[in-house]
Amino acid sequence: MTVNVGVIGVGMIGQDHIRRLTHVLSGARVAAVTDADLERAQTVADGLADANMHKTGQDLIEDPDVDAVVVASWGPTHEEFVLACIAAGKQVFCEKPLATTREACERILDAEMAAGRRLVMVGFMRRYDESYRAMKETLTSGAIGAPLVYYSGHRNPSVPPSVTTEGVLVDTCVHDVDVSRWLLDSEVVSAQVFSPRRASQAAEGLQDPVLLMLTMANGVIVNVEAAVNIAYGYDIRGEVLGETGTIELAESSKIVVKRDGQYSGRVPEDWRERFLRAYDVEFQEWIDAVAAGQSTGPSSWDGYAATVVCDAATEAYRTGGPATVSMREKPDLYTVGAAGTGLGATGTD
Amino acid sequence: MTVNVGVIGVGMIGQDHIRRLTHVLSGARVAAVTDADLERAQTVADGLADANMHKTGQDLIEDPDVDAVVVASWGPTHEEFVLACIAAGKQVFCEKPLATTREACERILDAEMAAGRRLVMVGFMRRYDESYRAMKETLTSGAIGAPLVYYSGHRNPSVPPSVTTEGVLVDTCVHDVDVSRWLLDSEVVSAQVFSPRRASQAAEGLQDPVLLMLTMANGVIVNVEAAVNIAYGYDIRGEVLGETGTIELAESSKIVVKRDGQYSGRVPEDWRERFLRAYDVEFQEWIDAVAAGQSTGPSSWDGYAATVVCDAATEAYRTGGPATVSMREKPDLYTVGAAGTGLGATGTD
Amino acid sequence: MTVNVGVIGVGMIGQDHIRRLTHVLSGARVAAVTDADLERAQTVADGLADANMHKTGQDLIEDPDVDAVVVASWGPTHEEFVLACIAAGKQVFCEKPLATTREACERILDAEMAAGRRLVMVGFMRRYDESYRAMKETLTSGAIGAPLVYYSGHRNPSVPPSVTTEGVLVDTCVHDVDVSRWLLDSEVVSAQVFSPRRASQAAEGLQDPVLLMLTMANGVIVNVEAAVNIAYGYDIRGEVLGETGTIELAESSKIVVKRDGQYSGRVPEDWRERFLRAYDVEFQEWIDAVAAGQSTGPSSWDGYAATVVCDAATEAYRTGGPATVSMREKPDLYTVGAAGTGLGATGTD
Amino acid sequence: MTVNVGVIGVGMIGQDHIRRLTHVLSGARVAAVTDADLERAQTVADGLADANMHKTGQDLIEDPDVDAVVVASWGPTHEEFVLACIAAGKQVFCEKPLATTREACERILDAEMAAGRRLVMVGFMRRYDESYRAMKETLTSGAIGAPLVYYSGHRNPSVPPSVTTEGVLVDTCVHDVDVSRWLLDSEVVSAQVFSPRRASQAAEGLQDPVLLMLTMANGVIVNVEAAVNIAYGYDIRGEVLGETGTIELAESSKIVVKRDGQYSGRVPEDWRERFLRAYDVEFQEWIDAVAAGQSTGPSSWDGYAATVVCDAATEAYRTGGPATVSMREKPDLYTVGAAGTGLGATGTD
Repeated sequence: MTVNVGVIGVGMIGQDHIRRLTHVLSGARVAAVTDADLERAQTVADGLADANMHKTGQDLIEDPDVDAVVVASWGPTHEEFVLACIAAGKQVFCEKPLATTREACERILDAEMAAGRRLVMVGFMRRYDESYRAMKETLTSGAIGAPLVYYSGHRNPSVPPSVTTEGVLVDTCVHDVDVSRWLLDSEVVSAQVFSPRRASQAAEGLQDPVLLMLTMANGVIVNVEAAVNIAYGYDIRGEVLGETGTIELAESSKIVVKRDGQYSGRVPEDWRERFLRAYDVEFQEWIDAVAAGQSTGPSSWDGYAATVVCDAATEAYRTGGPATVSMREKPDLYTVGAAGTGLGATGTD
Repeated sequence: MTVNVGVIGVGMIGQDHIRRLTHVLSGARVAAVTDADLERAQTVADGLADANMHKTGQDLIEDPDVDAVVVASWGPTHEEFVLACIAAGKQVFCEKPLATTREACERILDAEMAAGRRLVMVGFMRRYDESYRAMKETLTSGAIGAPLVYYSGHRNPSVPPSVTTEGVLVDTCVHDVDVSRWLLDSEVVSAQVFSPRRASQAAEGLQDPVLLMLTMANGVIVNVEAAVNIAYGYDIRGEVLGETGTIELAESSKIVVKRDGQYSGRVPEDWRERFLRAYDVEFQEWIDAVAAGQSTGPSSWDGYAATVVCDAATEAYRTGGPATVSMREKPDLYTVGAAGTGLGATGTD
Repeated sequence: MTVNVGVIGVGMIGQDHIRRLTHVLSGARVAAVTDADLERAQTVADGLADANMHKTGQDLIEDPDVDAVVVASWGPTHEEFVLACIAAGKQVFCEKPLATTREACERILDAEMAAGRRLVMVGFMRRYDESYRAMKETLTSGAIGAPLVYYSGHRNPSVPPSVTTEGVLVDTCVHDVDVSRWLLDSEVVSAQVFSPRRASQAAEGLQDPVLLMLTMANGVIVNVEAAVNIAYGYDIRGEVLGETGTIELAESSKIVVKRDGQYSGRVPEDWRERFLRAYDVEFQEWIDAVAAGQSTGPSSWDGYAATVVCDAATEAYRTGGPATVSMREKPDLYTVGAAGTGLGATGTD
Repeated sequence: MTVNVGVIGVGMIGQDHIRRLTHVLSGARVAAVTDADLERAQTVADGLADANMHKTGQDLIEDPDVDAVVVASWGPTHEEFVLACIAAGKQVFCEKPLATTREACERILDAEMAAGRRLVMVGFMRRYDESYRAMKETLTSGAIGAPLVYYSGHRNPSVPPSVTTEGVLVDTCVHDVDVSRWLLDSEVVSAQVFSPRRASQAAEGLQDPVLLMLTMANGVIVNVEAAVNIAYGYDIRGEVLGETGTIELAESSKIVVKRDGQYSGRVPEDWRERFLRAYDVEFQEWIDAVAAGQSTGPSSWDGYAATVVCDAATEAYRTGGPATVSMREKPDLYTVGAAGTGLGATGTD
């Protein structure tokens, strides 16, 4: 069975997902597209074999030829489209964030619970990266005992001058937050932010690097470092300190070159190079689950938790002190297939 | 356009290709299968949506619903099926070897030249591996000057006791031979074999490890080491010594673990783990080329050259001295899209 | 000229220094020894060619055959012996800590200033380690821009059950404090301590691991992690995050072994293995300076600063909040040859 | 007891040994020097405390103030001085080669056997390098089974244009020959030389790189690669392929730097940087043995064997075929403390 996918939002990331669904993966086709920019939507639709262009996301979601929906539009629109998908009983893959406010996320949780089954997957693609999966697998095996401290380094070569410190805490660190919850199988209970010496090349007013410290319910401390103008490359670091050992993400260079007095390997240039395969795996697992009538991957709960933690991080940055993370009780619906259920866990709905 | 693929031979490797075409890649479906074991063929066909089972490879090739053919049957049958595909004007992906004798390979070359266009791609998947591609790209960039020596280590955890030294030289080293020709953009002119101290766990009569030295037309010496009962893992090593630097394949471990007095990374368990992605990329490039009416990848000439070199290696092993590799002149048909045209070169036919 | 060295305290570390002075390094001999345990002192003296045994440190210091003194006795006795050396105008190498209280350190500073020249070197041997020197050299070269964050991981396989959290902050982290001041060429202005989930094998009441965060006068944040029952080895980690790059201490394994599905290298077993050479270099530089009538190495100021910072760390641990580090103004005497003057800086007195 | 050392030959390497004996190591002093260039000898003597200058090596050897002799003069003079030391019953440390011809080496063997005790140590310093020692220790432990193949890469940044291929085989590869014999605990039985494509920057007539293949008595094949104008650094590689694993020399960089899209470590600049410590350890072990009236280290037999093997390599290069290595039977005198007796073996004479 081929899954007919409708794509809402055909900007850079939406078009990349269309390419993936059309030319890379198995079992899906793009059946419909829409965008706030209708001209762009039409151009994209014209480039596809047999895809409808819709004037609104609502129309696309209601299209009987659309089995499942990818939401890749502007963050503030996510809530509306995800809620519409739930109302229509269609599975939806929503790029992060699930929604931009805690309240919006809660409305989605409520709607999904009312629907009685998981329909939403949030695009936290690191969970699909081979390195992180190997790290979690080894940690879960008990090879280094219980985790005690987790270091999560997030280094970007550069960001546009418009990016703010709050933006870094919310949009950049959200990946570190999600991967920490998933890897350590525990929720965040408090957040604190520290501001070291600034990189001179950072835009005025931007605290770069910024350090975010999370305390997990199980006592593990997570030290996130976000350095978003580091110039040398896109370098995603991770190390778990366990009771009797450690696990680190390895360098990803495919070759080692010796010249000019050095041996050297490549640091990825950007997130595309680093996480290209993770996106592929993420989407293939989603397509396979949709085709099988099952749900999979990061849930609405994961999207909600990430948003609540990033809110706390922003508050901690403003106040300079620790901020408590308070979340509603976790509904039963999300105790299967959510953080901590392991690699590629798939819950039957 | 979806490419309708017929698969001849549905043993382990054939079934893996079917899984790949059906569940992993984009743009193809398995339209027909056959096998020397008809019952097995029927079982496989039954597991597929809408695939015909044919009694013979010839029938499958003639099936008008089959656009292109994958030959994954027993080596000695390759010639017959490849020739039939050429006769039918259909593109064929032939697992290595192209054919088991030099003469059979030459008949394929002749047939393809008579057809006037490239129809055959041979399954030398290392050319599609990210590490080898990075190595070739860096070498071609001139970063280390001209290549002078190439070390190619081929280490298998174990082989069945039935494997002979000649088998290692032909079936195992063929990958090192192909990658050397491709990487160094030069043909092999002579081969010599050396027999070091044997591993005590090797089956009686097997020279393991065995060292194969190739001299290329451009003077580069290639030192191949095949150790096929090395126990510790499936470890594929490569290093180019250039005039002013070197390039080595990096370790592929995704994580580094520290425990018990050591830091350590993983060595792949088998060729599936090591080259899984290369097979995917190889097939996707083939499907894309077929869909576009183009040819791509290792050609009949590459299959011929590999067979001729492996023959010389076997002769060198028997005589103890160097064996000259003499090949016919390279037809114009293969000067585009063959060894040396770079990464993923695609020639329009 | 041979430097005649008197050694006060001939326990494990004192005897190791005697071995070093006698059998490893050039230009020195052990001329006299003493110890609180006189029998032990006599045994050690008997094992040496032509060394006097003194009943007290004071006697040893006054011995005209003693050119310079090594203080390797119990911490609380350091002040007395160092002050006596200054009074006698003799150079003294004092194992860390310089003294156990801030006030004692200040008395030493005062005495040395009254003497008008540097006579004291404190045994912070990491400054003599090749890895740290390479790190400082590269950082100073500007290769990665200004430092912004420094990670200092201090992992011990195990500690006796008597060790307390305060002991870890004072005795273990003192090396991280000194190396941070030296590497970053800046003083510590505040300290804060964080307590992650405890290792289950840690003795009751011990916070292990413990995280110490230092803020430097130049804004750099230093994250020290002390994990003193980590079991897997003695692993000293360091990474500077600069504006446009990073510098990490490399693994120190001399070989890489492949077996059993892994490639692996050795993690040092204990501090002896890791810092053996640093101790040799440290002492040789001290001997050479003494022979040349010069002073070198970590000064009383460095010893004072380390003690004050570790006091603040202890306070921060008790209160749970940040503790300000307030130090007296740095005397001119220590502006040459102290932290920040680079590699192996030697000031003529 | 201080060993009074006489040094014959005070060129670059002789002066380096004098520095080592005087300023780095323990237990020795330079008591006398001589050189073919008497003015240079006088200058060096003047720079030392209380060292005699002798007009000839013979005079120096006979000086009653000289306990032991270091021969660091021009290779062709080694035989004469070593024989004179044996005649005088004094221990002698002879820089490689022991002598420049097989016959000269045999005269030394005969003289030493007539003396009835080992007096000669040859300067094969790699045996004192930590990496090689770790490699031998792990190999001897049985961790990877019996050795089967050994790769020995010898890469120099550049050599003067006067260096010939024979010179490379004799003067450069001699270290690889010695380390192979020592590591594998077996003698060389045949040698063959292969000439790959030449580096364009090599001086006219020089075969660079050159490959030397040795077959050991135990069947192990050693592949030596000497590339003496490799430009990128001084890179000494080694890998043992065992029955069930491998051991490689690790990179020696102390730090890893990330910048400009790469992570990188340092390759040593020259042999001084790479083997500085090995020279120190080598000399300290010799001094200690001399002081204890014992012999140690690579023996005359090792010097003889290296010369015979290098002769065979030269012959193999000239003829293009394999050359048999035939050595006299190994005298009992050398069965203790010679190749294969392990790490730092010291035989009492």
